[in-house]
Amino acid sequence: MPDLLAIINKCVPDIFRTMAGMTAVPGEGDADAPRPSVLNGVTGSVSLSGQANGVVYTAYSDGLAKFLSCTVLGCEDPGEADISDVVGEFTNMITGNLKSLLCDKGFPCSLSIPTVLRGGDISVVSKNAPVSVRNTYYFAEQKEELVVLVFARFD
Amino acid sequence: MPDLLAIINKCVPDIFRTMAGMTAVPGEGDADAPRPSVLNGVTGSVSLSGQANGVVYTAYSDGLAKFLSCTVLGCEDPGEADISDVVGEFTNMITGNLKSLLCDKGFPCSLSIPTVLRGGDISVVSKNAPVSVRNTYYFAEQKEELVVLVFARFD
Repeated sequence: MPDLLAIINKCVPDIFRTMAGMTAVPGEGDADAPRPSVLNGVTGSVSLSGQANGVVYTAYSDGLAKFLSCTVLGCEDPGEADISDVVGEFTNMITGNLKSLLCDKGFPCSLSIPTVLRGGDISVVSKNAPVSVRNTYYFAEQKEELVVLVFARFD
Repeated sequence: MPDLLAIINKCVPDIFRTMAGMTAVPGEGDADAPRPSVLNGVTGSVSLSGQANGVVYTAYSDGLAKFLSCTVLGCEDPGEADISDVVGEFTNMITGNLKSLLCDKGFPCSLSIPTVLRGGDISVVSKNAPVSVRNTYYFAEQKEELVVLVFARFD
């Protein structure tokens, strides 16, 4: 079975460095994250289906979502729709990178369209996923953080 | 392009009648639902990928989620995990039915695993989905309701 925690610890910093010039430092991580698991801020979500089947959630603190949107869009005061676009697009890129690494390891899969959720203390669970991996990524310069949660099943 | 509102108005009552002996009466529906759209209660989610690409959300009022779980599991006081299982399974069956009808219309697709979200006023949006369809289904006997929201793109 692929080491999902190691994979997201590669994908997430790679995308932030390449696409926004930002440094994301992985926390310790949890390869057996609680179910349900609680998310806050602005959360992007993309699903996988195929030999790797699952859902990737990326929960941005409000400050991180705004900072990232300003950086990417080159504006000072992005609106909610702009922020959702950027969060959806980053979730898509992170999950695309994850998909590519899973494919290399013999688990080909396809991606759904990204969606973006907002709300306080959104609890998420998936009974059908034996794998539940979570990590927090710290952005020291911005004093902000990103939580990534992946539920998965490998066939 | 398939008429998604007509399709969910068939799938949702079919599954409730067959699997729980319950009568779900479709409301008027909105074939161009607001984005973002707000969901409450206990929400199941399953994604589609393939020639139909999208996400299906089914948001159960708390009373409906509990009543349905009691009916299906034959118990009087289901716990949160039991309710999540039933909501996830019903979302999976509704989306499986939807997938089958889309396949018949020439849009083959595969499903992700179901996830279940809890939280008040969860706002959801998908920039990448030209289609956004929403309807409320009324359960007169139980005085409860279900909201179904689908974001989709057809390739």
